[in-house]
Order: sequence, then structure tokens, then C-alpha cells
Amino acid sequence: MGSGKLLLPIILHFVFISHAFAQSIIQVSPHKTRIAADHKIRVNDGLYCESWKFSIETNDAGSWNNIPSRCVKFVQDYMTGDRYLSDSDVVSEYGLDFAKTVNVSGDVKDAWVFDIDETLLSNLPYYEVHGFGYACDKGIDRDFYQMGSECNVGWTLPRDVFEWTNSFWRSEVFDENSFNDWVDLAEAPALPASLNLYNELKQLGFKIFLLTGRSEYQRNATEKNLLFSGYSGWEKLILRSHLDQGKTATVYKSEKRSELVNQGYRIHGSSGDQWSDLQGFSVAKRSFKLPNPMYYIA
Amino acid sequence: MGSGKLLLPIILHFVFISHAFAQSIIQVSPHKTRIAADHKIRVNDGLYCESWKFSIETNDAGSWNNIPSRCVKFVQDYMTGDRYLSDSDVVSEYGLDFAKTVNVSGDVKDAWVFDIDETLLSNLPYYEVHGFGYACDKGIDRDFYQMGSECNVGWTLPRDVFEWTNSFWRSEVFDENSFNDWVDLAEAPALPASLNLYNELKQLGFKIFLLTGRSEYQRNATEKNLLFSGYSGWEKLILRSHLDQGKTATVYKSEKRSELVNQGYRIHGSSGDQWSDLQGFSVAKRSFKLPNPMYYIA
Repeated sequence: MGSGKLLLPIILHFVFISHAFAQSIIQVSPHKTRIAADHKIRVNDGLYCESWKFSIETNDAGSWNNIPSRCVKFVQDYMTGDRYLSDSDVVSEYGLDFAKTVNVSGDVKDAWVFDIDETLLSNLPYYEVHGFGYACDKGIDRDFYQMGSECNVGWTLPRDVFEWTNSFWRSEVFDENSFNDWVDLAEAPALPASLNLYNELKQLGFKIFLLTGRSEYQRNATEKNLLFSGYSGWEKLILRSHLDQGKTATVYKSEKRSELVNQGYRIHGSSGDQWSDLQGFSVAKRSFKLPNPMYYIA
Repeated sequence: MGSGKLLLPIILHFVFISHAFAQSIIQVSPHKTRIAADHKIRVNDGLYCESWKFSIETNDAGSWNNIPSRCVKFVQDYMTGDRYLSDSDVVSEYGLDFAKTVNVSGDVKDAWVFDIDETLLSNLPYYEVHGFGYACDKGIDRDFYQMGSECNVGWTLPRDVFEWTNSFWRSEVFDENSFNDWVDLAEAPALPASLNLYNELKQLGFKIFLLTGRSEYQRNATEKNLLFSGYSGWEKLILRSHLDQGKTATVYKSEKRSELVNQGYRIHGSSGDQWSDLQGFSVAKRSFKLPNPMYYIA
């Protein structure tokens, strides 16, 4: 990072100069060349980030830890714009289309399994102030962004200059403590598409199981949050017990689905934002992968 | 379709009028209102079609037969623009990243399985003149598009008017005869991303198996096409025999992978544009789903 620290003031100087003159430059100049180059980088980043998103959402990328720095702004735009809601809506519509084809039996054994985080509940308010996995853990002012090659470097930039320079950002490591504080608040809103599907499935007579990677000690806060955000009437809420600690999500969730199957349940559908919600053994007849370009859980 | 036939001349009249005046209208007028409404529909279509693509590429949509009419233009733009190539590139890069982590053994049993159509070879030249699954089976002039509520209706429209009216289009049913004629030509180009991955895997020492839904009688044409487009040195080309007819692609391909496993091969990776290339049993350690919003094979 040494050379990065030396270069950064020079680059920042250049960016500020370019920014100040951006509106008035008509003639060919070094500034204009710089702007054109920046624009080209941005355009190519957009194309690359669409492709990166394709690869993570299809699980082609396998396990990943960080949003590529050039895609941080892309993820922010995706999550806070129309696309995240629209993608979730269409996934839920396909889920409901399938559910309506199921001949729900009178034996109350027709089941649907939902994950919780980024499936029933949206933690977007948390990730918004934790930089969608890309900012330092200090909170972000709405009009200015902190920027630096290290988290303890405190330059601030106007929003539009930030947009030129987002490739300097790096991902935030997931902080379990601050996330657990957020869970305890029990204020995560429902993902609207999932709340709608959930209620439709109840109407159709499905028994609904909630299978989450959250731990047993978070049961009260989780129930409180689910009720607060509009969910009710689930058959069972399954959380990690001390016996499940250390297992991958795929193994833990497969084992729990297997227990349901052994109890005679037919798992018709499963909804989750992670492939580890959907793959493994005792899988549902149909799986519904919700979008999540913010993080990956194995 | 009766009311559609009555309405269509009226709508076409309106579209032509709107088109003729589109450049000169400044004042608020019925035409402008129409243009604004068209624009809104187009914008929303773009958002919907991105979400539709998400759902088919993640297999959330399950089996599907037709591109939604409102997404036909979207698929055309996707397949002929930068995104298809970029998405394929990034998938192949993740494939190669994984392949490099494999400790290729000296026993020549480290295997990679490739599908052929829309994986090694691109049939885009065929689908381009068969409307990306949306036009009638008569061929399309490069500057004019045929349009109508039935395939035997022969209006033609300038390209930009077509773009306003693409919601009238319907998908073409897959025509096996014309596709087989195309296979016999043996002129499909390589998908560049796959050719690159293929050659890198050979260099790394993987044994490459080609597993295709094409039939045994197409062996000669398929080999000729693969060599023509730059592929060589595969271990085995596996096509459907008469014993495999009637099986789903998932079952047929799983059975063939199972035979490889029984012969001692370790299938590290599998590349395909269909989920039926990748799922079932005897699956690869890592699967690489290439994009294909044109058609679905169960």
C-alpha cells in the first residue's frame, strides 16, 4: 500500500482539478482526456460488474469474500434502486406460479422453507450504513464519503467526485458484533416480494418453515422482528443450536430439511438468497434463489 | 386473436403517425402523450426483462418455452451486444481460476466436461436469422422486420418503428429441421471465452469430454464444426445414441457422466449453458453456467 499512499494525493489533486473544470471544457485538453479515460473506465466497470453479478448469482464464482472494488458503486446502485426489488418480485412470482400447481393435500404435510436474512427480512438499513460491504466501520455521511487506502485515512469527497473514484474503495470485513446489535434491534423490514409470497402460500395451505443461520440465542429478537415486519403463522422457526455450530450452512440446512422429510413433510419449495439455502441434500422440489450481491455464505 | 386482428391496423396507423412526427413535436399533443407512454413501457420492459433474465439464469423460472414478447428486443440486444461476450468471459475466467487450483495427477483421470451448443459453439448466426426465438420462420431482412399477429401476416416495418412495437412479437417455436440443416453446415463459430478455457484446460493436463444433446448421426458434422472453429484434442465426443432418445437432457447427461466416474475419471468441472448440463447425478465438483436467454432444455 506504500506506493498507493504516495500516489493518492496526486490523483486526488488531479480529480479535483478535473472536476472543477468538467462543465466548461470544450477544447481538447489533458483534463478532457482524463475525463474521457475516466468515463471509459466507468463504462467498462458497468459491463464487468453486470458479468460479475451474473457469475455470483449463478454460483459460477463459487465462494467469494469481497465485492470487487470496481463494483462497489454498482452493488450500491443495484441494492438501493429498482432492480433489487424488481428481481425479487419476479423470483417470488415464479415461486407463486409453481405453488399454485401443487395439489395441497389435507394431511398438512405440504411444506415451504424460507431463509430469513435477505429473504424474508431485508438488512439493507444495516448494510447501507456499513457501506454495502465496502466502507470503513465509521458510518457514512449522506453527502460526503470517506475515502482512503486504509480505513483510518479520513479524506472526504463530494458524492459526484466519489463516483469517479470509487475504485479506491475496498470491502468491509463482515463484523459479527455490529450485525448482532442490529439483529437485537429487531427492526429489519420485510422484503416486500417475500412477504407477499409468504402470505399467498399460507392461503394456499402450505406449512411454512423458517430455517436460518441465526443462532438459538437470537430467537426472541428474530420472532419479534418477524412479527414487527408483518410475518405470522409459521409452523416452526429453526435456528442453529450449539450442536450446529461450526457446520457449513449447506450441511446445517440440509440436515434440518432432512429432519422435516423424516417427519413426513413434502418440501415443495425453498426460498433463499444463498445457494447454501438451496443445495445439499433433502432439497426442495423447486428452489428460488433471491438476489444478493452483498455477501456469500458457504 | 380475433380482436387483435381488428385492432392491429388501427395501432399500426397510430404508430406510423407517431413515428413520422416524432422528431418535430414539442408542444403537448396526443402524439407526445403516446410517445411518453411508449417510452414508459419500454423503460419498464427493460427492468422487467433484466429480472426475467435473472430468474431464468438462476433456474428460478424452471422450464420455459418462450421469451416473453416484451423481452424479445432485450434478448436480441443482449446476445448481439457486449454483455453476452462479457458474461461468458467472466464465467470462463472463474472456471480457469478453479482449474488452476486442481492438482492435476499423472494418472490422466482429471476430467472436464463441456456441452457443445451455446457452450463451445455459438449458434448465434442461426438464431439471428430465426429471430432469437421470436420471429416467423421466413427469414428476416436486415433492414425490415416482418410483423403480425400471426406468422402468415406480412407487414414490414422500419427497424426503429419495430423497436417501438416489439411487444407485438411472439416467439418462434423451435424448428428441428431448420436447426439440423444448420448443424450440417458445420459453420458455427466458437464462443471465444470457451475456446480460451478449453485450450487452457488442455495445457493444464485435463482430459476433455464433450457431452452433447446432438444425435449420433450428427457426429461427422459436429466433429467437422469443432475442428473448423478451432477445437482439437478432446478425449471423447459423446452424442445421444438410439438408446438415449426420449430421455431428458438431465438424465441422459447424468448417465454419461456416471459412466465416466465408473471409468475412474474425476470430473472437476463442467461447463454448459443449460442447468440440465450441470444438474442431476454424478455432477462435477464445480459447475459453470454460461448465459443463454434464448431457449431452455429440460
